Amino acid sequence: MGLIVQKYGGSSLADAESIKRVAKRIVETRKAGNEVVVVVSAMGDTTDELLDLAEQVAPIATGRELDMLLTAGERISMALLAMAIKSLGQEARSYTGSQAGLSTDARHGSARIVEVAPIRVRAALDAGAIAIVAGFQGFNRGTGDITTLGRGGSDTTAVALAAALDADVCEIYTDVDGIFTADPRVVPAARKIDRITSEEMLELAAAGAKVLYIRAVEYARRHGVTLHVRSSFNNNEGTLVVNPKEGEIVEESIISGVAVDLSEAKITVVGVPDVPGKAAQIFTLVASTDANIDMIVQNVSTAATGLADISFTLPKSDGARVLKALEDSKDQTGFHSLQYDDQIGKLALVGAGMRTNAGVSARLFTALFEAGINIEMISTSEIRISVVTRADTINEAVRVVHSAFGLDAEDLAKVHGGTGR
Amino acid sequence: MGLIVQKYGGSSLADAESIKRVAKRIVETRKAGNEVVVVVSAMGDTTDELLDLAEQVAPIATGRELDMLLTAGERISMALLAMAIKSLGQEARSYTGSQAGLSTDARHGSARIVEVAPIRVRAALDAGAIAIVAGFQGFNRGTGDITTLGRGGSDTTAVALAAALDADVCEIYTDVDGIFTADPRVVPAARKIDRITSEEMLELAAAGAKVLYIRAVEYARRHGVTLHVRSSFNNNEGTLVVNPKEGEIVEESIISGVAVDLSEAKITVVGVPDVPGKAAQIFTLVASTDANIDMIVQNVSTAATGLADISFTLPKSDGARVLKALEDSKDQTGFHSLQYDDQIGKLALVGAGMRTNAGVSARLFTALFEAGINIEMISTSEIRISVVTRADTINEAVRVVHSAFGLDAEDLAKVHGGTGR
Repeated sequence: MGLIVQKYGGSSLADAESIKRVAKRIVETRKAGNEVVVVVSAMGDTTDELLDLAEQVAPIATGRELDMLLTAGERISMALLAMAIKSLGQEARSYTGSQAGLSTDARHGSARIVEVAPIRVRAALDAGAIAIVAGFQGFNRGTGDITTLGRGGSDTTAVALAAALDADVCEIYTDVDGIFTADPRVVPAARKIDRITSEEMLELAAAGAKVLYIRAVEYARRHGVTLHVRSSFNNNEGTLVVNPKEGEIVEESIISGVAVDLSEAKITVVGVPDVPGKAAQIFTLVASTDANIDMIVQNVSTAATGLADISFTLPKSDGARVLKALEDSKDQTGFHSLQYDDQIGKLALVGAGMRTNAGVSARLFTALFEAGINIEMISTSEIRISVVTRADTINEAVRVVHSAFGLDAEDLAKVHGGTGR
Repeated sequence: MGLIVQKYGGSSLADAESIKRVAKRIVETRKAGNEVVVVVSAMGDTTDELLDLAEQVAPIATGRELDMLLTAGERISMALLAMAIKSLGQEARSYTGSQAGLSTDARHGSARIVEVAPIRVRAALDAGAIAIVAGFQGFNRGTGDITTLGRGGSDTTAVALAAALDADVCEIYTDVDGIFTADPRVVPAARKIDRITSEEMLELAAAGAKVLYIRAVEYARRHGVTLHVRSSFNNNEGTLVVNPKEGEIVEESIISGVAVDLSEAKITVVGVPDVPGKAAQIFTLVASTDANIDMIVQNVSTAATGLADISFTLPKSDGARVLKALEDSKDQTGFHSLQYDDQIGKLALVGAGMRTNAGVSARLFTALFEAGINIEMISTSEIRISVVTRADTINEAVRVVHSAFGLDAEDLAKVHGGTGR
């Protein structure tokens, strides 16, 4: 008994059959005595199809109209889901982002939520109905225009509603069983994580774990929302993402999981004069391109040359833009040359217990060394160690690290044995 | 120079190419110095596809959710059209029904417009932009819910905006060249009508001419909006639907056109006791089923039996419902039996000049008689004569009538010779 927010992604709403299946699950949750708010994404590939149409009519689509176009996707899925629920005899009412009170700033395509006032959603619940809300969208009070929240926006909508309605849990439904210690397609021995802190989840998401978006996890962490990541294709318990209170004693595993990211490239600025302010000059320039840089390494200059090399990683999609900006500044910056490498892989080891356990880095480096895998860059936070290797060694790397930290499941059949119960 | 409202139907917006073609035409109208407001329907078959999905998830979809679902269609086309126009270098802004200030009552699926306050549309025009408005939809101020206007709703939206903005003309774009004296697929000699009064147009639309919906014509008539029905595939002048002012002298043709309707069926209630109030009892019952009955004929009872037969026509889609209601009332109503006939065709001859020209009915009946076509029912208004014949004789009927009233084009090649100029 409680208030549950459930979010269903496009893969759970791919066609009429899927929508009917999801409707059944929602009605079961309601019949168990819970108040239920459902947040939906667009059906299956709808968003991609709409983007494709937009590209055909206008090579460069502008924010306001593109947002208007894309939000049609969630309207379709929410209306269909409400109909499916009603045909099961349960009352349901669907709301657009603006009807659900999600007001945002005016940044089309990547709007930030400024206020959540789900008055009509609350009223629907009070009337005994299930409330269906279109994910990914809001509206700007100043312009009266429809906005979208950007990537992972539906997760953010769900978490924001869960926070505003003081929900007991925000269930994120997907097509996998939860968060795993590593990608099961790469590491067959990967285990589903039953419970993880939002702090660790943030590091895993930032390091490339795809199931949850950083922004939604951050929002959940800030507002104390418990997430439950689970599959819409079975009734298994998934992964709980919790927010332990200050001073609360949590049994922390040393390592929660290993994440891999193959979407980044490395730029090396070769032969940078080793004078104060040079790095600042370079990264101010890079920042002005809006590129999202991640790891940074600067080697020491040798006395002989007085020159240093600076390397950093960034999303491959930002590569060309940043290279051009650097090239254009070559005269002012005074470096020697640029190297671009898109054959890198990033591996991150995440665990809150790392804080109080010495020797984690040593064990990581040893495992990789013994497997003959070369480490090119290293970066650490309090609960994460990331290393960059060659892209073609990354799968082997994640397997040996997973094993070295005792994450492998003992009984594979038990883990991967079935999807239902 | 002026303010032009243009409405494009689904067939003019079938795909990305069509949208780009329409965008070009709109930009040309703007560049000629006009303020332009565009009303769009959903692309091609979008509405049918959405209805199909709805049927798959819920056999009986309810109004509110169905309206939310269907209105996604116009959002998609309006956003794409705005993008296409912008990519031609002209400023465009798209508005949903509610953003365009179309408030309606709360009757989902067939809402009536209660107020049109296109404040944002007017502001967009003042800023030099082209305003794109989603047709077919509005919102109810009381509930805050999205509504739809029912069949032909986009035409109604266009006319309502034209009235509220005091537009010079409301152009209805379609895939034919205008209103014809008869359906050119049936009567090859049919001519495009250059100019017709809204009164005549109303009768033609009511009699089955499909190009314009009655409701939009009524709205245009009431608010003095001039309609221009034309093709989006060429630049030919179409048909002007005008509202001559009281006392204004208009040269009225005796006959404007011949319309045909094959969508109706005939129900005959056989052996009704000829006592006062029986017809009222039967039609009160029929009205309670919300069926839209059209022609009614009652024969005289013979003194011998004291029984009469009552026949009426109604849309085939209402047939089963009305038959059942009548059957259920058989004991109270006391009729003998019911006959259902869905093989009828209705032909209507419309013309404002009919008022002052005697002999029109005589000429009509003679033409049909000479062609060996039997007339089963007759009904007349001030400017229309309708007859019911067998469905399989209706095409022959419309050809002989078209010819008998001198409507045939003299030079077929001139009429059907080309689509461009």
